[in-house]
Amino acid sequence: MSSTAGQVIKCRAAVAWEAGKPLVIEEVEVAPPQANEVRVKILFTSLCHTDVYFWEAKGQTPLFPRIFGHEAGGIVESVGEGVTDLKPGDHVLPVFTGECKECRHCKSEESNMCDLLRINTDRGVMLSDGKTRFSKNGQPIYHFVGTSTFSEYTVIHVGCLAKINPAAPLDKVCLLSCGISTGLGATLNVAKPKKGQSVAVFGLGAVGLAAAEGARIAGASRIIGVDLNSSHFEQAKKFGVTEFVNPKDHDKPVQQVLAEMTDGGVDRAVECTGSIQAMISAFECVHDGWGVAVLVGVPNKDDSFMTHPMNLLNERTLKGTFFGNYKPRTDIPDVVEKYMNKELELDKFITHAVTFSEINKAFEYMLHGKSIRCIIRMDA
Amino acid sequence: MSSTAGQVIKCRAAVAWEAGKPLVIEEVEVAPPQANEVRVKILFTSLCHTDVYFWEAKGQTPLFPRIFGHEAGGIVESVGEGVTDLKPGDHVLPVFTGECKECRHCKSEESNMCDLLRINTDRGVMLSDGKTRFSKNGQPIYHFVGTSTFSEYTVIHVGCLAKINPAAPLDKVCLLSCGISTGLGATLNVAKPKKGQSVAVFGLGAVGLAAAEGARIAGASRIIGVDLNSSHFEQAKKFGVTEFVNPKDHDKPVQQVLAEMTDGGVDRAVECTGSIQAMISAFECVHDGWGVAVLVGVPNKDDSFMTHPMNLLNERTLKGTFFGNYKPRTDIPDVVEKYMNKELELDKFITHAVTFSEINKAFEYMLHGKSIRCIIRMDA
Ligand SMILES: NC(=O)c1ccc[n+]([C@@H]2O[C@H](COP(=O)([O-])OP(=O)(O)OC[C@H]3O[C@@H](n4cnc5c(N)ncnc54)[C@H](O)[C@@H]3O)[C@@H](O)[C@H]2O)c1
Ligand SMILES: NC(=O)c1ccc[n+]([C@@H]2O[C@H](COP(=O)([O-])OP(=O)(O)OC[C@H]3O[C@@H](n4cnc5c(N)ncnc54)[C@H](O)[C@@H]3O)[C@@H](O)[C@H]2O)c1
Ligand SMILES: [Zn+2]
Ligand SMILES: [Zn+2]
Ligand SMILES: [Zn+2]
Ligand SMILES: [Zn+2]
Repeated sequence: MSSTAGQVIKCRAAVAWEAGKPLVIEEVEVAPPQANEVRVKILFTSLCHTDVYFWEAKGQTPLFPRIFGHEAGGIVESVGEGVTDLKPGDHVLPVFTGECKECRHCKSEESNMCDLLRINTDRGVMLSDGKTRFSKNGQPIYHFVGTSTFSEYTVIHVGCLAKINPAAPLDKVCLLSCGISTGLGATLNVAKPKKGQSVAVFGLGAVGLAAAEGARIAGASRIIGVDLNSSHFEQAKKFGVTEFVNPKDHDKPVQQVLAEMTDGGVDRAVECTGSIQAMISAFECVHDGWGVAVLVGVPNKDDSFMTHPMNLLNERTLKGTFFGNYKPRTDIPDVVEKYMNKELELDKFITHAVTFSEINKAFEYMLHGKSIRCIIRMDA
Repeated sequence: MSSTAGQVIKCRAAVAWEAGKPLVIEEVEVAPPQANEVRVKILFTSLCHTDVYFWEAKGQTPLFPRIFGHEAGGIVESVGEGVTDLKPGDHVLPVFTGECKECRHCKSEESNMCDLLRINTDRGVMLSDGKTRFSKNGQPIYHFVGTSTFSEYTVIHVGCLAKINPAAPLDKVCLLSCGISTGLGATLNVAKPKKGQSVAVFGLGAVGLAAAEGARIAGASRIIGVDLNSSHFEQAKKFGVTEFVNPKDHDKPVQQVLAEMTDGGVDRAVECTGSIQAMISAFECVHDGWGVAVLVGVPNKDDSFMTHPMNLLNERTLKGTFFGNYKPRTDIPDVVEKYMNKELELDKFITHAVTFSEINKAFEYMLHGKSIRCIIRMDA
């Protein structure tokens, strides 16, 4: 039992006081974990587009002050009542979506969309009592997707923590909390290319590059990267991408370009852009008879997916995925093992590193499209 | 070797001389099979909507005179050069789409959309020489989807013939040539409900009832029939349909009605209507996390399948199927065995029977929506 168990902890956190304004490192108070909650000491966190998106808060109800952050690795400091799966000292990855192990989704082999702990970007409080565990001088500070990892200590529902091999380097495997697992799982768990098949990846951001890494692991013969921004192409070679198509370089629809390159269509396509046009192209570029297209990108509210139904009747499959269909507690520890076995490469995703006090730099790298992932080291 | 081998055979055929006009039983000449072709004596045939559709020839290039018919059972009379898989006396089911066993589709485990022998409704001639094998007084008579079973003898590419157990009653298993296999396979091969799951079937024509039969065989707990025509509901009970929904009886979209009946959505949906609205509803009524929707109906040219992409991201799967994903030569003999083992019920699909000379009655039963399937007996 750590000496801080049951106590309020004072520590540093990067607080977003207002939409779009630089985060401020503050001393905050972190209350002890309640029933089914765990207090975690965060050692490393990284920045994902979703943090930036909700920090910019364009078009959503703003919820501030708030502590963002959801890709991270840490160590359990103390646990609340009823927590039996975790104990102080365990190494964990927080995940923005949880696994209660009791609902219909958790009991289904196929779904990871837990009814109780499914991502909720609007809620800024804990499930059990509707309150925050963060405060400063008595003012509550809101949580973000149940993780709020831009703090030296944070409180998380036990269902949103994956217990991992303590030998795994947290400054690397923290990436498996969100984007990298999402892209990797989209290919390995959902698109499931067979050895020797061709895979098109739409969007070469972190998620798309992770989808390409999945295709490399699966033994794809060709990995065709599609992006509107050709500056991503050089970097993507490190991720096994063998060919590139920029839709802007062609007069025909990109699905037709891909069909011509591949004698009728790619075997698998994974869309990681959030663009509805890319979603439609990703579907229409797969081969009839056996092609599978997987959608990962988060679309706009008013988007409509449209295609001629004959594209479906010709035996194409269209699927979407959430967090790469990984169940956070059940599956993520195994993904960490894949990294430990050198099956999965993670280091190449890390393009930048900053100290916690420099966290606003990580936002700038991302906003300027410079980073794939920037690791933020909490102890400095 | 039969005495007719290598000879032109004179026999009766029901010739469609003009679009929409009653067929006329004529004496026609049937040329011997060429390389990779087989001449088959048809014993039983049945009528499917696709025959009626191309006979009416609304909105297509009319091709007449033509011999329709594609659901049938027969016996090999003689074989052309290079045919080694079949010999005179073999019992066969003709199939409107073939399996060459050599193209990429035939070699893929997943596809049945053979490049060489895929259905072609426009072609009225044989593949090898672009000629017909039917004529009357020297005038060629066109083929239909490579089968033309409304004739006592017909010539068919060997790749479009399934060799079946000679003990199987051809007056029953002839139904497996088209519609029944299509619906059955849509459920068993593509939707693949697990035991105890719920299945919605949109459209309770022959194809939809066969999809329901598939759900019954798979052990579905609930089979919900959806049709705009409530008169189909009574009959559907025999096919294991446990509940009925007529979209016209509700103010809300039918997908919402189904979601409320099933605590969030059905596990599987199979669309067998050809209506784009039903296709969209069938997709949107499946449960998030694991739901699978399968489209079977043939849509109109200008239809567009439209849905919000979040319906996909929430881990629903959308697929289409052609001939129930069965490979005609490889798989249909096993479906016949399912009937022989009493796993599959076929007799309940047969609502009418006529002699060959009464074939126009079969058209009337179908046009008036009276029949599921009407068997036409060739020897009378
Ligand atoms: N489903 C999930 O669980 C989940 C989890 C994390 C992220 N995401 C989503 O995945 C998507 C990708 O995330 P990211 O962090 O890699 O984003 P990113 O912005 O770094 O990368 C997106 C890439 O797509 C490219 N692009 C945009 N429109 C395109 C088009 N029409 N055709 C081709 N390329 C196009 C951009 O140039 C960019 O390089 C986002 O929509 C994100 O919200 C989903
Ligand atoms: N994919 C294939 O390989 C294949 C093979 C054979 C048939 N088909 C297609 O399958 C479909 C069904 O064939 P069938 O012979 O059973 O047709 P059918 O006309 O006998 O049955 C269709 C049923 O759908 C109902 N329906 C129409 N619109 C509806 C709606 N919006 N909601 C609910 N019900 C609706 C009708 O009332 C009718 O009962 C057709 O489109 C046919 O072309 C496809
Ligand atoms: Zn759950
Ligand atoms: Zn993220
Ligand atoms: Zn073939
Ligand atoms: Zn048919």
